[in-house]
Amino acid sequence: MGLADALQQVIDDLDESRGVALVGMDGIVVEERKREGQLDLQALGAEFSGLLKTAGKLGDSVGFGGIVELVTSAERSVVILRQVTADYFLILVIQADGNLGKARFLLRRAATLLKTEL
Amino acid sequence: MGLADALQQVIDDLDESRGVALVGMDGIVVEERKREGQLDLQALGAEFSGLLKTAGKLGDSVGFGGIVELVTSAERSVVILRQVTADYFLILVIQADGNLGKARFLLRRAATLLKTEL
Repeated sequence: MGLADALQQVIDDLDESRGVALVGMDGIVVEERKREGQLDLQALGAEFSGLLKTAGKLGDSVGFGGIVELVTSAERSVVILRQVTADYFLILVIQADGNLGKARFLLRRAATLLKTEL
Repeated sequence: MGLADALQQVIDDLDESRGVALVGMDGIVVEERKREGQLDLQALGAEFSGLLKTAGKLGDSVGFGGIVELVTSAERSVVILRQVTADYFLILVIQADGNLGKARFLLRRAATLLKTEL
C-alpha cells in the first residue's frame, strides 16, 4: 500500500477525523489527506514538529527515552502525533469528542505500514 | 476527600502507576504520592510544566483552544498531564505498558474531585 492510500484509509475509517499527514521532523508535510478543506496541515505540521522535538529532549533528559506518541487534547480538537522513523512522524487531527482509542489504533497501524517504505 | 487521599486513590487503583502529583503551573509540586521511592516527581513536575505551557501556547496559536490533557508516551514510561484549574495540573507517570485508558479515567476523576477544593 502506498503512502497516500495509507493516509486515506485513516481518514476513511474514522468519521471524526479532520485530517492526517506524514511530516518530516523539519516540519515539512510530505503527504496529507483531509476531510476539511480549510484545515491547514502545513501549519499544524510545522508547529507540532516543534512540540514533538521539545518532548523528545524532555524524554531524554528525564531518562524516559524516545517519544513514541504524543496526544494533545485541546478544547476544540485532539492532535495525535506518532513517530514513524527518526526523520518522520504522522499527525492526525480529530474532533474533540472523537474516538481517541480508535484514532490511536489507526495511526499506529498506518505508522507500521509506512515504516517499511521510508 | 482531601488532596492526599485523591492522589493516593489514583495510585491504589492502578497497579502500573509509578507516581502522581498535583503541580502548580510554576512547576512546583503541591502534593505527591508514589509507588517508587526513587521517582523524582519534583523534577518531572518542573520539566513537564514547561511542556504543558508550550502546548498551551501552540493550542491558542492554531485556534484549538486550551489544553485539557497531554499524553506523552516514551519508550520507558507514559506521562499523563491533566489541567485542573488555570494554575494547577495533575501529572501521572505509569509504566510504558500500563493501561492508558484506565489511567486517563482515574486522572480525570481526580481532577474533578480536586477542582472543587482549589
